[in-house]
Amino acid sequence: MSARAQPTVKDLYFFNESNTSRDLLGGKGAGLAEMTAAGLPVPPGFTITTQACLQYYADGRVFPEGLIARVDAAVAELERRTGQRFGDPAAPLLVSVRSGARISMPGMMDTILNLGLNDETVLGLASLTGNERFAWDAYRRFVTMYATIVLDLDKDEFEELLDDRKRELGVSTDPELDAASWKMLVDRYKAIVRERSGRDFPQDVHEQLHLAIRAVFDSWNSKRAIDYRRFNRISDDLGTAVSVVQMVFGNMGEDSGTGVAFTRDPNTGERVLFGEYLHNAQGEDVVAGIRTPERIADLESSMPTIYRQFVEIAQRLERHYRDVQDLEFTVERGKLYMLQARSAKRSAEAAVRIALDLVEEGMIDRRTALGRVDASALDHLFHARIDPAEQFEVACKGLNASPGAAAGRVVFSADDAVAWSQRGEDVVLVRVETTPDDVHGMIAARGVLTAKGGATSHAAVVARGMGKPCVAGCEALQIDRRTKHATINGVPIKEGDWITIDGTTGAVAIGRLQLIPPPATLPERLATLLSWADDERRMQIWANADTPEDARKARAFGAEGIGLCRTEHMFMQQDRLPVVQEMILANTPEARASALTRLLPFQREDFVGILEAMAGLPVTIRLLDPPLHEFLPSLETLLVETTELRLTKGIESPEYKRSDTVLKRVQQLHEQNPMLGLRVCRLGILYPEIYAMQVRAIFEAACDLVKRGVDVRPEVMIPGVGSAREMRITYDNAKSVADEVLKERGVTLSYHIGTMVELPRACVVADDLVLHGAEFFSFGTNDLTQTTYGFSRDDAENSFIPRYLEQRILTDDPFQILDRKGVGWLMHEAVQRGRSVQPDLKIGICGEHGGEPSSVAFCEQLKLDYVSCSPYRVPIARLAAAQAAIGALE
Amino acid sequence: MSARAQPTVKDLYFFNESNTSRDLLGGKGAGLAEMTAAGLPVPPGFTITTQACLQYYADGRVFPEGLIARVDAAVAELERRTGQRFGDPAAPLLVSVRSGARISMPGMMDTILNLGLNDETVLGLASLTGNERFAWDAYRRFVTMYATIVLDLDKDEFEELLDDRKRELGVSTDPELDAASWKMLVDRYKAIVRERSGRDFPQDVHEQLHLAIRAVFDSWNSKRAIDYRRFNRISDDLGTAVSVVQMVFGNMGEDSGTGVAFTRDPNTGERVLFGEYLHNAQGEDVVAGIRTPERIADLESSMPTIYRQFVEIAQRLERHYRDVQDLEFTVERGKLYMLQARSAKRSAEAAVRIALDLVEEGMIDRRTALGRVDASALDHLFHARIDPAEQFEVACKGLNASPGAAAGRVVFSADDAVAWSQRGEDVVLVRVETTPDDVHGMIAARGVLTAKGGATSHAAVVARGMGKPCVAGCEALQIDRRTKHATINGVPIKEGDWITIDGTTGAVAIGRLQLIPPPATLPERLATLLSWADDERRMQIWANADTPEDARKARAFGAEGIGLCRTEHMFMQQDRLPVVQEMILANTPEARASALTRLLPFQREDFVGILEAMAGLPVTIRLLDPPLHEFLPSLETLLVETTELRLTKGIESPEYKRSDTVLKRVQQLHEQNPMLGLRVCRLGILYPEIYAMQVRAIFEAACDLVKRGVDVRPEVMIPGVGSAREMRITYDNAKSVADEVLKERGVTLSYHIGTMVELPRACVVADDLVLHGAEFFSFGTNDLTQTTYGFSRDDAENSFIPRYLEQRILTDDPFQILDRKGVGWLMHEAVQRGRSVQPDLKIGICGEHGGEPSSVAFCEQLKLDYVSCSPYRVPIARLAAAQAAIGALE
Repeated sequence: MSARAQPTVKDLYFFNESNTSRDLLGGKGAGLAEMTAAGLPVPPGFTITTQACLQYYADGRVFPEGLIARVDAAVAELERRTGQRFGDPAAPLLVSVRSGARISMPGMMDTILNLGLNDETVLGLASLTGNERFAWDAYRRFVTMYATIVLDLDKDEFEELLDDRKRELGVSTDPELDAASWKMLVDRYKAIVRERSGRDFPQDVHEQLHLAIRAVFDSWNSKRAIDYRRFNRISDDLGTAVSVVQMVFGNMGEDSGTGVAFTRDPNTGERVLFGEYLHNAQGEDVVAGIRTPERIADLESSMPTIYRQFVEIAQRLERHYRDVQDLEFTVERGKLYMLQARSAKRSAEAAVRIALDLVEEGMIDRRTALGRVDASALDHLFHARIDPAEQFEVACKGLNASPGAAAGRVVFSADDAVAWSQRGEDVVLVRVETTPDDVHGMIAARGVLTAKGGATSHAAVVARGMGKPCVAGCEALQIDRRTKHATINGVPIKEGDWITIDGTTGAVAIGRLQLIPPPATLPERLATLLSWADDERRMQIWANADTPEDARKARAFGAEGIGLCRTEHMFMQQDRLPVVQEMILANTPEARASALTRLLPFQREDFVGILEAMAGLPVTIRLLDPPLHEFLPSLETLLVETTELRLTKGIESPEYKRSDTVLKRVQQLHEQNPMLGLRVCRLGILYPEIYAMQVRAIFEAACDLVKRGVDVRPEVMIPGVGSAREMRITYDNAKSVADEVLKERGVTLSYHIGTMVELPRACVVADDLVLHGAEFFSFGTNDLTQTTYGFSRDDAENSFIPRYLEQRILTDDPFQILDRKGVGWLMHEAVQRGRSVQPDLKIGICGEHGGEPSSVAFCEQLKLDYVSCSPYRVPIARLAAAQAAIGALE
Repeated sequence: MSARAQPTVKDLYFFNESNTSRDLLGGKGAGLAEMTAAGLPVPPGFTITTQACLQYYADGRVFPEGLIARVDAAVAELERRTGQRFGDPAAPLLVSVRSGARISMPGMMDTILNLGLNDETVLGLASLTGNERFAWDAYRRFVTMYATIVLDLDKDEFEELLDDRKRELGVSTDPELDAASWKMLVDRYKAIVRERSGRDFPQDVHEQLHLAIRAVFDSWNSKRAIDYRRFNRISDDLGTAVSVVQMVFGNMGEDSGTGVAFTRDPNTGERVLFGEYLHNAQGEDVVAGIRTPERIADLESSMPTIYRQFVEIAQRLERHYRDVQDLEFTVERGKLYMLQARSAKRSAEAAVRIALDLVEEGMIDRRTALGRVDASALDHLFHARIDPAEQFEVACKGLNASPGAAAGRVVFSADDAVAWSQRGEDVVLVRVETTPDDVHGMIAARGVLTAKGGATSHAAVVARGMGKPCVAGCEALQIDRRTKHATINGVPIKEGDWITIDGTTGAVAIGRLQLIPPPATLPERLATLLSWADDERRMQIWANADTPEDARKARAFGAEGIGLCRTEHMFMQQDRLPVVQEMILANTPEARASALTRLLPFQREDFVGILEAMAGLPVTIRLLDPPLHEFLPSLETLLVETTELRLTKGIESPEYKRSDTVLKRVQQLHEQNPMLGLRVCRLGILYPEIYAMQVRAIFEAACDLVKRGVDVRPEVMIPGVGSAREMRITYDNAKSVADEVLKERGVTLSYHIGTMVELPRACVVADDLVLHGAEFFSFGTNDLTQTTYGFSRDDAENSFIPRYLEQRILTDDPFQILDRKGVGWLMHEAVQRGRSVQPDLKIGICGEHGGEPSSVAFCEQLKLDYVSCSPYRVPIARLAAAQAAIGALE
């Protein structure tokens, strides 16, 4: 290496320098260095650090000072080690230039092979290998990669020329092409490069290398890489390393080849070597699927020595890394070279099985095993999926934008989605992309399929918010909305045809596939893993459930209490809604009281069911929360209907009068901003009889159960308290009704009354709330997020949040992933204040964030007592809470 | 005094014990003690402390242990000093029992006179005074007070019996009644007491005293006292003291009498003794207005010795207290007794004049003078008022619920208010009370008059919020809504009649009185006082103004900058609205750009006007803030109109199609919660061309003015920023347009770009906002209050806030008076964080709180740089800022 222009921080390492830092060298560079250190057969090379990449961006896409000189010096060193010379017409050194970030992003960034070939060295390679065809093929490949990656030209044009040539010769596969054909194609490709870029394909091999390094750096910020990071919550601040590796060739004859392999099955987790090998091919041929590769196991017979060596290396690497490895290797003229070793991506099922097996094999301990399973990925296990027994063809693949599978008839507009679904049909809404105008159609559909848009597109964000399957950005899909027709890779589809989408994998299939609903109990291996999690976690896991069925499901999944039982859903049920409306529309206190009296038995019955289902565990029942007009007919519909009746029946008709009366009352209750209006405890203060009825129903239910010997633990939660006086009044009212019922029935029962902390003011006066009655806190982070940001979720998630995510104003949707800096800081304040006056104050979270791993980790930092989430997210929360407790999740 | 049952804290003091603590003895008790100490003629007596009152409430309305014994002992001491005996049939000691809190609450609490009279002592009083008529009249008065105050019976019944008696005798005034009549009335009154309370009027004089003390304690929490404290922001925790004073009688003949006097004119502040004297009368007769009293100055001729003595005492007291005194005195058989001395209530004009005069007279210094004027009261000077030249009869008086005078035609329903005002008529809405259903009528009316309700009634709260005059709780008003008629004290009024109300005084007059609009410049004396204030205050005073006229007005009142210039009001103007609508409804970016191009000259012209008016001073211009649909027709109206067109013209008619197109777009823009929707900087990020146009208009205007030699200081304010990225993007966009314009025009100009801090999240990431561009902060406390509390002002002030104030869940409307505990704490956080990264960060407030004294005082505590308020509140803010700076306002 040259001594000049040494940077303050070393930004280039040879594989044998024993630096194996993933942060600095990326996964690929670190893996190559580690394998080199372990004495495994790795071609020589060096890695330019992620730090250099970050510096490159910090300086406005300019190489750090002296980097080029250091690269050139490193190449000289490589020449010394390999005995080949870069650009030597006789024995040319060829290299690959590979990307690699700290966190693996398979296929998202660029790699360039065969670099160092030019019009002269190609001849040297031909004579050196004695294989002119191979040399020109290699050169052809390099020119193609250069054109598509460095110049960003369209690959199709090159493919078409190749196809043309095959047609000319009447052949159908690449191997059938001879040296002359490849040579001719190289000429044609170079002509395209000249034409499109205005300059010749560079013959200077150093210039080739410098351009390639720049292209790899640039690929860190390609759209697909950014989208991938966004979707996988990978920071933009990592940067990519660039490894420059001496080329080895798998396409130098039948004693050569290339393969990829996993040390265990990444789909099932089974302990078998899993992978593919292609004779006489380069790595890209495996991916391109030009020939069908053989299974890795078949190597045992075809290349027994290589196979044994590889198996031994694979096992050694798995033991070394104590995890399943994803390996790439090449055999050049009978010699095995390892090109990559990294921890393997795996399915959720596989992750669980592998974690358990590695513990059993003594490779890792239980805590490590807990850290090996991505809690979020468990979500996939609890969505509908396509029956594995189904034999089907994937018509196309898009982005797995919102998990779960859905089957339905194709519709091409939101209005059609509503119309078909109102006829009782399952539909899948198929659009080029969705906009806020399509939301009613998304609500009506079982799933959404779009041709355009990424993980933060409107369709993706809104579907995730709704918990509906979505496959987005499916480029093979062409839609003609006017004629209500589409094609997928040329296959025609019309409105009403069945289609099946899998938002977990991104797969789309034409026809109606059998779906498997989510499991009602935990799979056995997962149950074992979660039992280990239970040993480690500090927080309890509760569930949000409004019905006995949901409560039972939650309990089966391990919930230790109900953190949020919403009573308004009970009000919405069809047999009750008319009585609820009567209560709201009541003109006199007597009429209101009468309606409430009739609602009481319904509510009591609701509470009997859920308290019984959760016998022995706490059930937190939230008193009525939404604005009253949510229970009334839509103002817009009423306006139209009343106007129609006025014009058709006249203002004296009873129909008009009836409609007008309801309209007037609905207008009266109408609010500009109902989210900030007469709701939560304000309802309970202005209409104390409503809360009184609800509290009575809770305690009558509890008393009935106690008399039947059931252990009930009701907790009454007052929503939306923002001041000490609200707390005092609602607490006292609730307590007096509760105690009255207990006295009437002669029952003794321990219970608590607390509040949902969901307003910024509640957080900053939290100590006051405790002093004025609150016996527990439960963070309502959905509403707290709304007021902290000043975002109405209903409005924002359909309009500006997708745009904010695209523009990276928000790194995450704060309604999906808790905003630690803003909302989290207020929560921290509330915890500190609440516990300053009552150190053992029970505090939980019952917003939707309670089932999201990163948010769960934050709750652990806040030292909450429990997180509460939807039943299917209880397993995720159990694992995430354990990971947070052992420091494996931050 | 008895030695037994001595409390740990002494809770009873004789006037001559030299304790003059107002906190402990109340204003009245302290005044009596102080006058006694000064050797002035004060009847002997003692005061039970406010502490005893608080203890009484703390113990659940039970007298503190031993208090009764201590009172009885004190009475015995009083007997010793006066030589009279309590309950002595021969020479009875009579006392008055008077209330008195630390802060004067005139007329709000109870006083009982002539206590100690019973069926026996009345005879003793008669023989002792040789005046049987006087004795029975005194007894009659006492029984009436006892019945109405202790037993809470209706005074009317007693008055009716009195009237009956006069009718029987064919006389019309009290003095015409003889001893027998009073004696008969006493019998009848005692019969009512027996009938209503189920027990006889108490003959035991000690029992009388104990009951009276209890009644005074209880009157601290009477509804009117609570309402008064609420309205005047007096704490509920002070309690009242009770003074027991030997009775002196002004009604013992022509050498007796009673008077009230102010040492200066409390209306104008003029330095003349001001007051009234009534010969041969008790104090209550002056108040009752039974006979016309003479002017205090007339005493000089009728009772020269008394007059000289009184003048000397008055001057001595004014010098002693260094303030204008409100004095009560009685002359008993030629001897002067002082019964009260307290600082006088005064009008705003008088307060200013007196403060100035006292400084000139060397009695107080300027700082003290500043503390003598209630900043809030200055508000009255800047509302319309009834022309003092008008000679008119006050038809009735109600509560002065919202200041200012209004004249208009009477309407009895909100719908009528709208209908009449749409015909161009000024109307006053007259209602028994208002509800949220009346708000549209309140908006349409010039003022509001109600028969029921206090200072926290719906009418009062909403009218204050709107800045409209309101007289509430006018009990003389009877309304028959069906026939659209009313009577005021029996005078009939019908719909369409003119009426004038004065919300500053509570007066109502029938007919149309001439009103004087608020002054355009500062009155001279106020200007002097405010110039002293300017020497003391630390904070600057800026104004909120959207027009050049408002800016000029603000400047005339002393504004040192514009803190908030709202650009949306410019969008609302009639000639621009169609272009704004075109911009919003645009289907293409080109159409939007075209509309914006046409708006640019309008905006530029707006900014030229305001920047020129404020030459040399900063003008903070807020970019577009409200949701776009605020500029479009109402969705409700459109729904009705479109339905009508569909049914009358058909769906093929151009009218229907046009209406339907607009409807669809309005529906598309419609939001569930526009306050939390696509507004503030979100608009500027999603439609950057809007903000770009506005910034261009600002800087084109600035450049034009600079070229004309005008010193312009534009400050661009980005509304509703909640995250660092929003700040960065909007800052960079605004800066690049601004610099582009300056470059185009070749102008150099210093300007700033900052943000309106109006979201809880902005407060807790305030340091980030500074790091990402914000060059100043301005608290938008209206919106910050909305999100911190989760209250939509539009909805809350018409619905639950009035109820919350009534139920004392809120002590103040947080939209009127800054909520220090919640909102204020977030502000504090923002200030700390902002200045942690930029110590000299300029921070102001531009919410409506900026003109409210208590909120201004809080801003001083936060060390803000300026407060910004509406032009008419600039004088208030100047004074309040000075008071806060010198510690006279907290």
